[in-house]
Amino acid sequence: MKIYQTATAPNPRRVRMFLAEKGLLDNVEFIEVDIAKGENLTPEFVAMNPMKKVPVAVLDDGTSLAETMAICRYVEEAHPDTPKLLGESPKQKALIEQWLRWVDFYLMVPVGMCFQHTSGYFKDRMNCFPDYGQDCFSAAEKFLAFLNEHLKDKTYIMGDSFSAADINAFATVGFARVVKLRIGADQVHLQAWFDRINQRASAKV
Amino acid sequence: MKIYQTATAPNPRRVRMFLAEKGLLDNVEFIEVDIAKGENLTPEFVAMNPMKKVPVAVLDDGTSLAETMAICRYVEEAHPDTPKLLGESPKQKALIEQWLRWVDFYLMVPVGMCFQHTSGYFKDRMNCFPDYGQDCFSAAEKFLAFLNEHLKDKTYIMGDSFSAADINAFATVGFARVVKLRIGADQVHLQAWFDRINQRASAKV
Repeated sequence: MKIYQTATAPNPRRVRMFLAEKGLLDNVEFIEVDIAKGENLTPEFVAMNPMKKVPVAVLDDGTSLAETMAICRYVEEAHPDTPKLLGESPKQKALIEQWLRWVDFYLMVPVGMCFQHTSGYFKDRMNCFPDYGQDCFSAAEKFLAFLNEHLKDKTYIMGDSFSAADINAFATVGFARVVKLRIGADQVHLQAWFDRINQRASAKV
Repeated sequence: MKIYQTATAPNPRRVRMFLAEKGLLDNVEFIEVDIAKGENLTPEFVAMNPMKKVPVAVLDDGTSLAETMAICRYVEEAHPDTPKLLGESPKQKALIEQWLRWVDFYLMVPVGMCFQHTSGYFKDRMNCFPDYGQDCFSAAEKFLAFLNEHLKDKTYIMGDSFSAADINAFATVGFARVVKLRIGADQVHLQAWFDRINQRASAKV
């Protein structure tokens, strides 16, 4: 499998962490894409992912697969002997999916929208609405408070077991620094969880 | 299983269609929640879903499960003898997930944001940025054009097999009428696909 990525972007980082936790990082060839220069807008890239986003995986049979969680789903299903990061029982799988979506819709999207609409980083290719971006900052801030409360009696988001929900939330909290959103000094449960994930070998990849 | 829903909203409709395609609709007790009146903002509701959204499922053991696709994932995994709507092989599961996310991020979210930011329907509980809402309309319009092109040689989004991607896209295209976004007269492939899904018994539930 090949993965086209921008190494510093948060979604490729989620995929790398997912692969590292499964011990599969070395099975993948990574190809760097410079999104600031618009290398994701070329006809060749758009043929792989019409949505023009990184990461994109290219499977050994040539199939292109876009979307972080679709790539993670493929890896989980294609390597059943590796640690399960998307759950085992129906209930566990569903609750992890709930959390993955909460992290995306209430943290990753607001942080991303805040960044895109207030920084002008992609102003050559989108309309920016800074007031909307600022509103997204508040939404992301609220989710951090919620997550801190949720983690007050838990080792990981799902309780005792580490999952993809931890990976996605951790990578997003890390990314949130680009909009100067940081874990509050009083958010001790969130900070302890962040430090715990940060000590894993997968956090370094 | 109980499901708290607002029957006219698009996400509960996706779950009902999913259940109907699996022949499981009668296994579920539906409880109506009036989101216009704010019944989703009560302490009892927030205890079930801190994100204050419908639908929410309550499993037989009392576990609350929020998020449309998490509920669908639970149903798929807990009833392995019913038609598979989230795929069978790793590749098929991953490609369906890719499409589910594309439909959410590039159609459902833009249509929902356009509705929320231009209609003022929830102005008692959110800040509205109408220009951003209008920009979302254009994004959703572009996705319809992409979907029309994708469907030019296909019966369903995944090709020959019906999947949850069809359910989610169909329910969203139906919902898009609230912002006056409709299938274009020249989008004949999209229209033929829409009519095809609309003839299924699940489209009536």
